[in-house]
Amino acid sequence: MGLGIGTGLRVGVVGGGQLARMMIPPAVNLGIELHVLSEAEGSSARLAATQIGDFRDINTVVKFAEGLDVLTFDHEHVPRAVLDAVAGAGVPIRPSADALASAQNKLVMRDKLVALGLPVPRWAVATTTADVSEFLATFHNQPVIAKTPSGGYDGKGVREILGPSEVTDWLGDGPVLLEEKVMFVAEVSQLVARSPSGEMQTWPLVETRQSGGVCVEVIAPSSASEFTSNHARHIASTIAEELGVTGVLAVEMFLMESGDLLINELAMRPHNSGHIFTELSLTSQFEQHLRAVLDLPLGSTDLIAPAGVMVNIFDGVDQVGVRSALRANPSLKIHDYGKSARRGRKVGHVSLIGTEWESLLHLARIGASEITGNPVP
Amino acid sequence: MGLGIGTGLRVGVVGGGQLARMMIPPAVNLGIELHVLSEAEGSSARLAATQIGDFRDINTVVKFAEGLDVLTFDHEHVPRAVLDAVAGAGVPIRPSADALASAQNKLVMRDKLVALGLPVPRWAVATTTADVSEFLATFHNQPVIAKTPSGGYDGKGVREILGPSEVTDWLGDGPVLLEEKVMFVAEVSQLVARSPSGEMQTWPLVETRQSGGVCVEVIAPSSASEFTSNHARHIASTIAEELGVTGVLAVEMFLMESGDLLINELAMRPHNSGHIFTELSLTSQFEQHLRAVLDLPLGSTDLIAPAGVMVNIFDGVDQVGVRSALRANPSLKIHDYGKSARRGRKVGHVSLIGTEWESLLHLARIGASEITGNPVP
Repeated sequence: MGLGIGTGLRVGVVGGGQLARMMIPPAVNLGIELHVLSEAEGSSARLAATQIGDFRDINTVVKFAEGLDVLTFDHEHVPRAVLDAVAGAGVPIRPSADALASAQNKLVMRDKLVALGLPVPRWAVATTTADVSEFLATFHNQPVIAKTPSGGYDGKGVREILGPSEVTDWLGDGPVLLEEKVMFVAEVSQLVARSPSGEMQTWPLVETRQSGGVCVEVIAPSSASEFTSNHARHIASTIAEELGVTGVLAVEMFLMESGDLLINELAMRPHNSGHIFTELSLTSQFEQHLRAVLDLPLGSTDLIAPAGVMVNIFDGVDQVGVRSALRANPSLKIHDYGKSARRGRKVGHVSLIGTEWESLLHLARIGASEITGNPVP
Repeated sequence: MGLGIGTGLRVGVVGGGQLARMMIPPAVNLGIELHVLSEAEGSSARLAATQIGDFRDINTVVKFAEGLDVLTFDHEHVPRAVLDAVAGAGVPIRPSADALASAQNKLVMRDKLVALGLPVPRWAVATTTADVSEFLATFHNQPVIAKTPSGGYDGKGVREILGPSEVTDWLGDGPVLLEEKVMFVAEVSQLVARSPSGEMQTWPLVETRQSGGVCVEVIAPSSASEFTSNHARHIASTIAEELGVTGVLAVEMFLMESGDLLINELAMRPHNSGHIFTELSLTSQFEQHLRAVLDLPLGSTDLIAPAGVMVNIFDGVDQVGVRSALRANPSLKIHDYGKSARRGRKVGHVSLIGTEWESLLHLARIGASEITGNPVP
């Protein structure tokens, strides 16, 4: 008979956003003590915020990490020097600083993906406007995609360009990643979790739908063929293993008409495209992330229904709207991020599980629309 | 477009036990601010504990309740004077003081159940040893059950007796409830949630298994006939409606060989017998309780798998055991109550969902046994 207080493990999370917030429920269930370092009071994860401070400050993060069993992340923006200091103090960092270095810089990641022989869109590094012109000429001056190497998310740091003048501001700060504009039939995302001991679990491939570069809807599982789905699992598992990722990794890919996949973006943490698994899978990405970074055995990713959909909620949540949405659909699951309202801000999501995604998506859109007061898309 | 911070509702919970703890995950999801009044530091619900204090102290509870949208409970032991003071200060109490009065006293409840024409075991009130002897004589001096009117839970305040001398200590404190010892084929529990506006939702009937008067296992749904299941729903719904219960009500009943049901115990709060619905139903009893006491529309209680089982964990949780259990069964869901180890103490539970309960129960018992280091029953 044990004498400990529950599983009694202490996980620190840098960043108090909705991803840290959504780690709270599985932490409560598993008896894990969650310690969140938030940048400010009133963060999404405020319930578990044990410290307010700047994640760029070495002393702040080292002090925060004292006595933790592991340090993990709500975002990928922690500077290398901070990570090295925490690791130097003897606290395991998962994913590791080396793995995060690839996630923090798209040029570093691109080199690694190419070295692994994984499929990516045609690309180039531009340091001058001449480089940009040359790349555009390859595509007969049709639009191409420019990306800043770091700091981008939710469509920020990504532009569709027709001429070099459109990225002169970025070129002033350093090299820019240029990519062909891929004519895909769908965008998909493959989630995988990997533990330090090498155990891996993948969820079924999902289809993501974006608007203005921001994920707005997810359909699970994707309607891609079994061959493509297996390929997607192989790609994500290869990245997780070869880059030594620990925790959840999301690999966003373009699905081509040929069935081919091209890697678009990666995130080394739970990801918006995996929220549906909170309801649809036996193990949510948040529970799995906690289990993975603690090197606990991973959970089953079996689905508990044939299909599920997630629709993001933007702008704000209306109390009357929430009541209407819940009344109209008793199966609707609401996830509120505890954020104040702001136009364009992602403040929550809704999920539905059932037998086929078309009707679920229709109902989830209606639910999201009632909650925000915005029209149904 | 709304301008509030999420649903932004504030729910106060008196008592920091595991029931309050298990309200945290749905509160996080729904954007509800949970405020827990714990008796001491380090309670199960410590993450949401906003105040430490004595729930028997009027000033403490009135101060705690200030600014809350609703006050609800982890247990039924709050004195009437405290409830009245909070209600007098304008904070809604759900379930209400009147409803709770029935739950707090088994003699009051027995009178109400009889007045409603609901089925109960044969019974009597004893105030003297002569009363006890008379009741025993009715049953040819075979064993009968004696219960203290208040304060009992998990087998406490309940005795099987053969003679009046076995309850003289209780008779000194007031009347004792005597009941026939029912020869049941199974014990079952019916959960219902009711909101102040009168909306009700029931979950399927479950079978509970006890050891030493303490629930050790739950099988869902029970194998009772459709007729019996409908009868159980009718009984629980009648009690909820006629007693004006708000929130979750659990009605524990004896299932007789004839298919008849006899009411055993009631609890006006989430209940051990409903824990399986966290995994098995679209809406857990904890989410439903929060929705009900806030008068939000109730959630669907549809099951997401044909069967589920819950096995309680007693004594203590062993870290090595948790790893073994998770490794052996990736589908096992662990709920740790964050309590220190003590022989006989309920410190958590495990759940499994699937297609049929026999094999699930076998696996869940193995999982629970690995977690505690105790032998498989």
